[in-house]
Amino acid sequence: MFEKIALIGIGLIGSSIARAIKEKNLSNHVAISTRSQATLDKAKELELGDSYHPDPTVVVQDADLVIICAPVGAYASISKAIGPHLKEGAIISDVGSVKEHVVKAIGPNLPDNVHFVPGHPISGTENSGPENGFAELFTGKWSILTPIAGTEEKAVEALSDFWKALGSDVEIMTPKHHDMVLAITSHVPHLIAYNIVGTADHLESVTKTEVIKFSAGGFRDFTRIAASDPEMWRDVFLTNKEAVMEMLGRFSEDLSMLQRAVRFGDGEMLEELFTRTRDIRRSIIDAGQETDEQDFGRTPTPNEEK
Amino acid sequence: MFEKIALIGIGLIGSSIARAIKEKNLSNHVAISTRSQATLDKAKELELGDSYHPDPTVVVQDADLVIICAPVGAYASISKAIGPHLKEGAIISDVGSVKEHVVKAIGPNLPDNVHFVPGHPISGTENSGPENGFAELFTGKWSILTPIAGTEEKAVEALSDFWKALGSDVEIMTPKHHDMVLAITSHVPHLIAYNIVGTADHLESVTKTEVIKFSAGGFRDFTRIAASDPEMWRDVFLTNKEAVMEMLGRFSEDLSMLQRAVRFGDGEMLEELFTRTRDIRRSIIDAGQETDEQDFGRTPTPNEEK
Repeated sequence: MFEKIALIGIGLIGSSIARAIKEKNLSNHVAISTRSQATLDKAKELELGDSYHPDPTVVVQDADLVIICAPVGAYASISKAIGPHLKEGAIISDVGSVKEHVVKAIGPNLPDNVHFVPGHPISGTENSGPENGFAELFTGKWSILTPIAGTEEKAVEALSDFWKALGSDVEIMTPKHHDMVLAITSHVPHLIAYNIVGTADHLESVTKTEVIKFSAGGFRDFTRIAASDPEMWRDVFLTNKEAVMEMLGRFSEDLSMLQRAVRFGDGEMLEELFTRTRDIRRSIIDAGQETDEQDFGRTPTPNEEK
Repeated sequence: MFEKIALIGIGLIGSSIARAIKEKNLSNHVAISTRSQATLDKAKELELGDSYHPDPTVVVQDADLVIICAPVGAYASISKAIGPHLKEGAIISDVGSVKEHVVKAIGPNLPDNVHFVPGHPISGTENSGPENGFAELFTGKWSILTPIAGTEEKAVEALSDFWKALGSDVEIMTPKHHDMVLAITSHVPHLIAYNIVGTADHLESVTKTEVIKFSAGGFRDFTRIAASDPEMWRDVFLTNKEAVMEMLGRFSEDLSMLQRAVRFGDGEMLEELFTRTRDIRRSIIDAGQETDEQDFGRTPTPNEEK
C-alpha cells in the first residue's frame, strides 16, 4: 500500500502496527526510530522493521507514510525535527489519544506539500513496550481519523484504507469531538481507576495486603487500566484538560446524587440505575467490542499454583 | 462432611456451592429452597440438589448446615421463618456481602442451640441466576467468616473446612472490619462503575452509540461489574451505608486532588500516582487473585463476525 512507512516510537502501538504491516504485507520497507537506544535495539531484535535509526529525520526520508507513535508530549519536538526532511506528498499521521492538542503541536511544523491526517486507534492493553505488541491488536476495533479542514480527500482515504487493512474499522470526526468522546470512554475511566487504586493504597483502617487478597470482589477490574503506561497517561491529562474536566464534572455530580441515595436509603433509585447499566454492557458485547465470556473469560487459579 | 445441607436461595453463589458440593462429594443430601417457583424449577432441571421446596422451613429440617444465599434484604424474614425449625447443633451461615447488618438481621431470630457463623465468599461474576453458577467459582479465592463473640470454635472450624473443601482460602475477621475491607475492595468499586456507566448514558455531547463503539478505550472494563445483579447490589448499599460513605469520602477527596492536578497541569503528581498503581496490579497477580494475561486474556473479535 505504501512503498516505505516510517514509525517514530515503537511501544505497544507502534510495534503492533509494525507487526500487522509485516503480517499483511502492506509495505516494502518499514523504517523505525525511537529516542531510546535500548528500545531501538529491542525492536531490531524482534525484527519489527527493515531499518532502524535513533534520528527520526533519517527514517522519514522517502517515506510515503509517517506515523508518530511516541508519547504526545514529544510531538512538537519530533515534528519540528522531521518537518524539513519529509517527502513531498507524504502522509503524516499519529496514534495519540488526544487530537486538538496534536493538531496544534504538529500542524505548524509541517511543510505545505505533505498531508497531515491525525489518527487514533481505540485499542491497547495495559502492557507497554515493543515486546508486548501483537498484529491482531486492531482487529475488530475502531480507529478514528480527525482530518483538519482543507485536507485532500485522497490522503484521508489512503490512511483509512491502511487502518482497514490492519483489521480496524474507521470513523471520521473533528478533533474537538474526538477529545470529548475519548474523555468519557477512556480518559475519565482511566483517571477514576488510577484514583481508586491510589485511595486503596493509603488507608489506615484496611491494609494493603487485605486490598490485594480480597480484590476479587471488584477492585481488581480497575487495576488493569490503572497499570497502563504512566508517561503516556500523564500526557493525556496534560493535553485534554478541558474535555476531561467537563466529563469529570458530570461524573462527580452523578456520584453526589448516588451518595445521597445511599445516605437516605433510596433503594428504588439505586436499583433503577443498576438495572439500566446492564443494558449498556449488553450493547457493547453486541457491537463486538467486548467478550461475552463471564468474568472476561478469566481462568481461576487453583490454590496449589499460588 | 455434612449429612444434609440446606441452601436457601439458588442464584449464582448458591448454585455454585451446590455444584461444588456435588463435584467434591461433600454431603449426602442437598436441599434447595427459593421463593420463586421458576428458579426452583430451573434448579431441579439443572439437578443441583436432592430435594426442592419453596418453603424454607421444610428444607432446613434435619439439616446440619444451612446457608442463606438470598439477597441480604430477605435475611430477616427468612431467619424468622426457619428459626423454630432448625436442627439442634446445626450451623447457620450465609454468603452476604455485608456482615454487621447480617448479624443484626439473623442473630436475634435463631434459637440458642444452633451455631451462627456469618460468611462471605469473595468471588462472583457479573451473571446472576442458577444457570450461571459453576463448581470452580471459589477456587483460589478467599472466603471470610465473621463469627460473633461466644461462638463455639468447633463450629467455625467445621465451616472453615467446608469452604476449604470448596477450593477456597479462609480468613476470619470481625463483621465490622469485614464491612470496611469490602467497602473499598468491592462496594465502592461497584458504585463507581455503576456511576460512570450511568454518566455516559445521559450525555448530550456524546451519543450512546459512540460510547458503545469506542468503549475499548477503557470504559468497557467498568461495565462488567456494572452488570451485576441490581437487587443484590441495592441491598449492599442499603445495609453497609456507614463504611461505604467513609470510603466514598476518601475516594472523592483523592479525586478532587487529582482534578486539581489536571487543572493546573501538575504532570509530576500525575505520573507519580500512575506509576505507583502499577505495582498494586502486579501484587494482585502475584497473590493469584488476577490473571496475568494481558487485557484479561480477552480474545479480539474479527470484523467479519460482528
